[in-house]
Amino acid sequence: MGRVGEFNTPHGKVHTPTLLPVINPNIDLIPPRQIMERFGADILITNSYIINKTPRIKEKALETGVHELLDFPGAIMTDSGTFQSYVHGDVDVEPLEIVQFQKDIGVDIATILDIFSTPDRTFAEAKEDMERTLERAKISTKIKGETFLATTVQGSVYPELRETCATELSRGNIDGDVFPIGGVVPLMEDYRYAEMVDIVMASKRGLNISKPVHLFGAGHPMIFALASAMGCDLFDSSSYAKYAQDARMMFTDGTRKLKEMDHLPCTCPVCVKYQRAERLLELPFIEMKRELASHNLYVSFGELRRIKEAIISGTLWELVERRCSGHPMLYEALERLYTHFDQLELFEPASKKRMMLTGPFSLKRPEVQRIDNFLRERYIPMSDTCILLPDASKPYDVTYGSLINEINEILPAFIAVDTPLGPIPIELSHMYPFSQSLYPKHAGSSSNRPKVAEIWPQVKYVLKIRGEKPLAQVRIWVEELKDHVADKLYDESNKMSKHQRDILSIRSTLDMQFGSGIGDQIMKRNSEDIAFRKSKSTDRIRNVFFKEEHVFSVSASSGRITLKRKGALLLKKALIGKDYRVVMDKESAPFVRKGKTVFCKFVLGCDDNIRPGDEVILVDEEDNLLAWGKSLMNRKEMLDFQSGMAVKVRQGIDQV
Amino acid sequence: MGRVGEFNTPHGKVHTPTLLPVINPNIDLIPPRQIMERFGADILITNSYIINKTPRIKEKALETGVHELLDFPGAIMTDSGTFQSYVHGDVDVEPLEIVQFQKDIGVDIATILDIFSTPDRTFAEAKEDMERTLERAKISTKIKGETFLATTVQGSVYPELRETCATELSRGNIDGDVFPIGGVVPLMEDYRYAEMVDIVMASKRGLNISKPVHLFGAGHPMIFALASAMGCDLFDSSSYAKYAQDARMMFTDGTRKLKEMDHLPCTCPVCVKYQRAERLLELPFIEMKRELASHNLYVSFGELRRIKEAIISGTLWELVERRCSGHPMLYEALERLYTHFDQLELFEPASKKRMMLTGPFSLKRPEVQRIDNFLRERYIPMSDTCILLPDASKPYDVTYGSLINEINEILPAFIAVDTPLGPIPIELSHMYPFSQSLYPKHAGSSSNRPKVAEIWPQVKYVLKIRGEKPLAQVRIWVEELKDHVADKLYDESNKMSKHQRDILSIRSTLDMQFGSGIGDQIMKRNSEDIAFRKSKSTDRIRNVFFKEEHVFSVSASSGRITLKRKGALLLKKALIGKDYRVVMDKESAPFVRKGKTVFCKFVLGCDDNIRPGDEVILVDEEDNLLAWGKSLMNRKEMLDFQSGMAVKVRQGIDQV
Repeated sequence: MGRVGEFNTPHGKVHTPTLLPVINPNIDLIPPRQIMERFGADILITNSYIINKTPRIKEKALETGVHELLDFPGAIMTDSGTFQSYVHGDVDVEPLEIVQFQKDIGVDIATILDIFSTPDRTFAEAKEDMERTLERAKISTKIKGETFLATTVQGSVYPELRETCATELSRGNIDGDVFPIGGVVPLMEDYRYAEMVDIVMASKRGLNISKPVHLFGAGHPMIFALASAMGCDLFDSSSYAKYAQDARMMFTDGTRKLKEMDHLPCTCPVCVKYQRAERLLELPFIEMKRELASHNLYVSFGELRRIKEAIISGTLWELVERRCSGHPMLYEALERLYTHFDQLELFEPASKKRMMLTGPFSLKRPEVQRIDNFLRERYIPMSDTCILLPDASKPYDVTYGSLINEINEILPAFIAVDTPLGPIPIELSHMYPFSQSLYPKHAGSSSNRPKVAEIWPQVKYVLKIRGEKPLAQVRIWVEELKDHVADKLYDESNKMSKHQRDILSIRSTLDMQFGSGIGDQIMKRNSEDIAFRKSKSTDRIRNVFFKEEHVFSVSASSGRITLKRKGALLLKKALIGKDYRVVMDKESAPFVRKGKTVFCKFVLGCDDNIRPGDEVILVDEEDNLLAWGKSLMNRKEMLDFQSGMAVKVRQGIDQV
Repeated sequence: MGRVGEFNTPHGKVHTPTLLPVINPNIDLIPPRQIMERFGADILITNSYIINKTPRIKEKALETGVHELLDFPGAIMTDSGTFQSYVHGDVDVEPLEIVQFQKDIGVDIATILDIFSTPDRTFAEAKEDMERTLERAKISTKIKGETFLATTVQGSVYPELRETCATELSRGNIDGDVFPIGGVVPLMEDYRYAEMVDIVMASKRGLNISKPVHLFGAGHPMIFALASAMGCDLFDSSSYAKYAQDARMMFTDGTRKLKEMDHLPCTCPVCVKYQRAERLLELPFIEMKRELASHNLYVSFGELRRIKEAIISGTLWELVERRCSGHPMLYEALERLYTHFDQLELFEPASKKRMMLTGPFSLKRPEVQRIDNFLRERYIPMSDTCILLPDASKPYDVTYGSLINEINEILPAFIAVDTPLGPIPIELSHMYPFSQSLYPKHAGSSSNRPKVAEIWPQVKYVLKIRGEKPLAQVRIWVEELKDHVADKLYDESNKMSKHQRDILSIRSTLDMQFGSGIGDQIMKRNSEDIAFRKSKSTDRIRNVFFKEEHVFSVSASSGRITLKRKGALLLKKALIGKDYRVVMDKESAPFVRKGKTVFCKFVLGCDDNIRPGDEVILVDEEDNLLAWGKSLMNRKEMLDFQSGMAVKVRQGIDQV
C-alpha cells in the first residue's frame, strides 16, 4: 500500500511521502527557508489558531500572507486548533471562522476544526464526536473555494467508526482534498502502535485512495516506514524541535539522550562534524539545540528518501521489517499489520525484481501468504503422487536439470521442491517469486509452512527425499527407481517427454496467473501444434507458438506470461465472466483499440483479481476485445483515481 | 566479545573498532589527510609491496618515510604482498626483506609475508601453509625492533588449524603485536559468512585476547557489527574506492548501483547535498567517483561510531541482529555465531541497563541462553508444586502484589511467571534481566522455550493459570483456592509470611549470582536475626542486615547483590574452592587490602565463573580475604591483559 506520489499546490509540487516540519510562528529555531534549502522540505505546517490568537502576527499574516510571514516559498499547510483543544480542553474559535481565516492568510492546505476524539472515549461518545466532525467537514468544504481542505478522520480506537467516517468523507457530499487521520497522538505517546495500525487500516478501507493521507502528529522517523507501508503520505511533527530542546536525538530506531551517548552513531552532517556527544554538549545551549534539530531533520528526511527508494525498488517490506525489529512495540504493530492480509494483498504487485526474506517473520508478508493461496486455489498437481525434492540452489529446475527428465521418463509424478516458502512445483521454478527470492537456509522450519497434503488434499502419496547434499541424494534415488521399474512392465504411454513438460510449465504458469483450469483450456491441443523458442544461454522458454503463431512470451526476469494478439483472444475466451478484464467506456474505446494510453478516468470497471503488474485484457462494455497489457493498478485505484495511467497497453486490436 | 579499545603508536592513538582505508600510493582519489580530517580516520593501510616495486615512490618512501610520502599524520599500517600472491600466484620478494623494508620506510604496523591459504586447500595443504606462516612469523618478529608487527592467522576453512595457528602465535615464542585473520576475502566474496564466523571464533579461542585483531580485507559496513561482536578490532578495505569506481554505493544493508537508484537513501553529507541519484550521475566521472567514495567512507565510519556506541550502551546484540536481518547469508552467519554459546557467554556482562529482544531470534542470544542454564543449575524451587502465573507487566512481583501474599499464606508453593524468556520465579522479578528486558508479546511461543518440568525435574505439579487478563484470572483462582482450603485442616506452620518471602528472595538471588546452595548457607539463621531496609518509593529491599550489621545491598537498577564487609566474609566461607575469587600476587596484596586499584598484571588466578560485572572477592595466595568488588573482566581477559583494571574494588579489608 506504500506509494510515492506528488501533487501540485500554488506554491509548488509536494512529493510524498514527506514530513511537514511544524513551524511555531513565535519561535525562531531553524528559519523555514533553510528547512527547504538544507533538508529538501517542499511543504511545512504551522498553526493557524496560534497565528489567529497572536495579534502582532495575525495582522502581518492577513496583510502579506502566511508565506511572507514565515519567509517560506514552498507549500504551507495549517492546523486549525484541534490539537490545542485536545491539550487545553477547548478552543475559542468557530469551525467556519478558522477555515475562513486560513483561506484569508493564503495557506495551500487548510484544515477543518475537527473533534479530537481521545482513545478513552466510549463507543457512543466517539460516535458523537465523529458525527460532529463529519458535520463540520461538510459545512467547511462549502466555503473552501480554491484552497485545499484537509478533512480529518476521527473515531477514536474503534475501527468501525474510523471506516464509517472515512467512507462518509470520501463517498458523501464532502469535498475534502487531503485526509488527515486524527486523534492518534495519544496512542503513539503510549507506544500503542498495534492499535494505530488497526485505525489506519480501517480508515484506508473507507477513504478515496486517490487523495493524500496525513497521519496527524506522526513525526518520529522510527514509524515512517510502517506508516508508509499502510499508504500514509504526509507526516508532521514538532518533535524535531521538542526533542532538541530536551537534548535528545532521533534515530530510525528510537530516541537517545545526548548526555547518555559517547559516539554520535549517525552519518548526518551534524554527527560527522562533531563525532562525539561531548563536543555537542560543550556548545552554548541555543547552538546545541539548532544542531540537534538539524540532526533530527536530517535523519527524518533521510528516512523518507530511504522509504521512497524502497517503494520504487520493491523492497519496502524488507525495510519495514528491519525498522520494526528496532522496538518490541513496533514489532507487535507489524504482526498486527500482517493480519490485515486481505487488504494489503490487493495492493501487492504481482511481481518484483526480487523478494528478500529477512527472517522467519517475513513468511507472514502478504506477498508470501498470497503464494500459499495461489498454490492452493490455482495450481493443479498432475498426479496424486508427489516427489518432494530437497531445497537446492535456484532456479530449481536448472539445478536438478536432467534428473527431472529421468524421473519423468519413468514416472510422470508431480515433482515439487521443499523450500522455506513451502513446496514449490518444479515447473514453476522460473516464476516470481520462486527464482527471485532470497532467504536464510533455516528461514522456515517446515513446521510453520503448509505441507503438500494441506495445500493439495488430492495428493495422496508424498515421497520426500531428504539430504544435506540434494543433488547426490536425488541421483541415488533415481538410480534405485530405475532398477526398480526395470523389472516391471511399465506403461510406456505414461512417459513424459521434455516437450510435454514444457507444455505443463506454460499450463501451470497460466493457471497461477489467471486462475485454475485456464491453462488447460488454452493449452489442450495437439502437442505437435505447440512450439517453443528458447533462450540460447539459459534454455528457458521465451516464446510460445500455436501452429507457428506467436501466442505468449515469458518474461526473462519474472517468469510470467505476457500476451500476444492470439494469446489475448484465447485468454478472453477462456476467462469466465469479467476475470482479468478492464472495461473501458465508449468514449475511450476507439483510442484503446489503436493502442493509446489507458487513463483511469475512462475505466468503467475492473476485475477484483487484478493487481499491479498483472497481465490484463481491455474490453468495451459489450465485452469486445480492445487491447491487452500490463495493469499498473488494482480495481480500487483504477476507480478512485481520476488521473493517471491505469494499464500499460502492449497492443491494441486495431494495431498491426 | 565486542570491545571498544585504543592503542598508542608513534603517530597517535588508534581507537578501535576502526576501519583502515586502503590507500593505493599510485592512485589519487581522496587525499589521505582528508581521510583523517573529514571522516575521523586515525589509521590507514597501504601496500609496502607496491611501494617496494615502484621505483619512483620507493625512493621517496625510503628517503622521507611513508608518512610524508602519503602526507598522512596518523598511524600507517602496511600489508606485505601476501594478498598480491593470492591474486597473482606469487610475489617476488623475500619474507624478511619485506619486513625490513616496512621498518625502513617507518610504518607504525608492519605485516609479515604470510601464506594466503585459500578455502579450497585440502586440510594437509592448509596445514603446511599454516606451518610456513608460523615459521615466517617467528623469524620476522626477531627483526621487528620497535615496529609493531602483524602476525597473521592462517588455516583456510579449518577451525582446528585456525585455533592451532592462533595459539602458536600467542603462546609460542612469537612476539606479534597485532593479529590479522587472513585468507577470508574469498569467503566474503562468496557470502560464506557462516564459515567466516567459525574461523574467527576458532582464531579468537587461541589468541591472546589483549592484542588487536584485524579481519584482513573486511571493509563492507554490512559486516562490521557482526565482526565486532566477535571481537574484531580492525578492518581494512579498498572497497570504498573500488565500489565508487564502479558507481556503486555501500550501505549497512548492502551495496546498490547508483544508476538503479532514484532517491539517495542516506543522511550523509553527500546524499544530503545531492538528494537524488540522477544529480550524481550528471557529474564528471572523477567527481562522481570522489563523491561516492566519500559516501562510502561516511557510511563506514558512521557505522563504526554506531557500533562503539552500541558496545558502550550494552546494545550490540540488538544492532547485530538488525544488521544481519539485512541479508539472508548474514542471518545464517548470526545463527552460526549463536551456536558458539560457550565461547560468547564468557564475555557477556553479568548485567546491562536493558535487554531488548527484537524478535523470536533474539532468544538464541548468549545472554538469554545463560538464563536457562542458571535457572536450571543454580535456582532451587522451594516446593514440588509450581503455580505458573500468566505473563504480565514488569516487575512481576509488583504487578501481582498482594496476590502473592495471599497465595503464600495458604500454600507455600513455588510461584513463577510464564514469560517469553521462560518461567521466571516470582522472587527473582527484580533481578536482571527479568525486569530489565523488553520484548514483543509473542516473541517466544511457549513451544520454543524450556518448560518448568524441563528446567526443574524435581517439580512434580505445575498449575498453569491462563488468561488474557492476568490479574483478574489469578484473583479468581486465589478466591477459589481460599474457598477450597477453608474447608480443610490446613497446616498453619506451612504459611509463609512476607518476611519469609523477602528472605527467600535474597536467598535465591545469592544462588543465581554465586551458585546453587550458597544462599541457603548464608541465610540459614533465625529469621529474627535478619532485617531489611526497603525503598520508600518502591518497597523493594535495598539493604540486608544480620543482627543489625549491614551485610548486602541490592542494586536498584540490576537487582543484583553487592557485598559489604560481613557479606564478603560470609560469602568467602560459603563458596567452595576458588569460586568467585580473584587471586592477587604477594606484591599487590598489601595495596589491595587498603582498597587500591586491582591491575591485571598482579592477578595470579581467577575463577572460571567470573564474568564482567560479577561481584567477586579478592584473596591472596593463602586465600586470605583482601577486598571485594565488581569484576570488569573474565578470567581470560585478566590473565592475558598486562595493563588495565581487573576489578573495581568496593572496599579493602584494612579500610574502615
